[in-house]
Amino acid sequence: MEVLKDEEIPITKIKWLLTSSSSKWLEQAVSNPIELLIDHANCERKAAGAAVQMMFRYLCEPGLAEVLSPLAREELEHFERVIGILRSRGCYLEPLPAPPYAALLAKNVRKEEPVRMLDTFLVSGLIEARSHERMALLALHSTDKELRNLYMDLLRSEARHSCVYWNLAKERFEKDMILKRLKELSRIEADILSNLHPQPRMHS
Amino acid sequence: MEVLKDEEIPITKIKWLLTSSSSKWLEQAVSNPIELLIDHANCERKAAGAAVQMMFRYLCEPGLAEVLSPLAREELEHFERVIGILRSRGCYLEPLPAPPYAALLAKNVRKEEPVRMLDTFLVSGLIEARSHERMALLALHSTDKELRNLYMDLLRSEARHSCVYWNLAKERFEKDMILKRLKELSRIEADILSNLHPQPRMHS
Repeated sequence: MEVLKDEEIPITKIKWLLTSSSSKWLEQAVSNPIELLIDHANCERKAAGAAVQMMFRYLCEPGLAEVLSPLAREELEHFERVIGILRSRGCYLEPLPAPPYAALLAKNVRKEEPVRMLDTFLVSGLIEARSHERMALLALHSTDKELRNLYMDLLRSEARHSCVYWNLAKERFEKDMILKRLKELSRIEADILSNLHPQPRMHS
Repeated sequence: MEVLKDEEIPITKIKWLLTSSSSKWLEQAVSNPIELLIDHANCERKAAGAAVQMMFRYLCEPGLAEVLSPLAREELEHFERVIGILRSRGCYLEPLPAPPYAALLAKNVRKEEPVRMLDTFLVSGLIEARSHERMALLALHSTDKELRNLYMDLLRSEARHSCVYWNLAKERFEKDMILKRLKELSRIEADILSNLHPQPRMHS
């Protein structure tokens, strides 16, 4: 793949994110399509698991399970689609070492309610927003048509999922409070990604 | 509801199960439709969670995630349908105390592999088989048409889910070994249910 400079990357401006992904990440991702697919499948499975876990934690919160359950189903559909592509290429899931991204974000979820709930929504929304931004880049720059189509199809859902978490927050918290915390968390998110993780990952 | 004697219950003979549900369970269940629906919703959510957890544990096992992911999606669809009915009746999810059924079965899952995997499949299959049997009874005996239709629709999936777990076991273990262990576990399952739990539950 031809190496792009950062300013040459056509930015999908995502309103949650403070920074755009670097050309180095894109180059790393496009050069390692199979490892990225395996990591991507793991991410979809984990996103489904996280949504189901949130439904367990906030069992009695009306309006939460109604949107998180369909979201979890959609993540599982994506998971199935990605492992289908992996299998068609003679590969399968592997327990790849995870980059520190999600664990570092989770560390910033405050422990006490109700702000724990707010932070959980915002961190999940940020992860979905980053997936959206990166899938948009891969949909444009992957050298493989099947993968360009995959990412093009999936990025729409990722965008929708950010909105789901935004709406869950908006229905329960003051807008000023949400925006203040989102600003802090999106700064943390951008800082985590400022040093490229050595292994190709969806969130390296 | 008219009290039936045990021998009057039209038995849906499920091959996994050693015993049929008692008329006392059916009477308890039919007399408490809302509490049963809340418990049922919790069961569907937990079944989805258990399938996703199994996918995490056996990440690299080919052919496992491909069937457990659609199964988890279907459990979530059922969950959504049940909470839809609850909401339409002015009710919602509640953290009902769980009966000892699932925890006692889980205690009988051996700790070491590969028999841990076999036991996990068989315990999950037994729970699905019991759900199938009980939904068949509720589809016949519920005094509420909407609920009869609900249980009639869902019991087919429960039957399919038992088969999913049976096939997962059959593809990986000797038939004699499976049948021997299934006999032990189905005895345990029947014993757990031999004393009716005081609260109305899908698995009381």
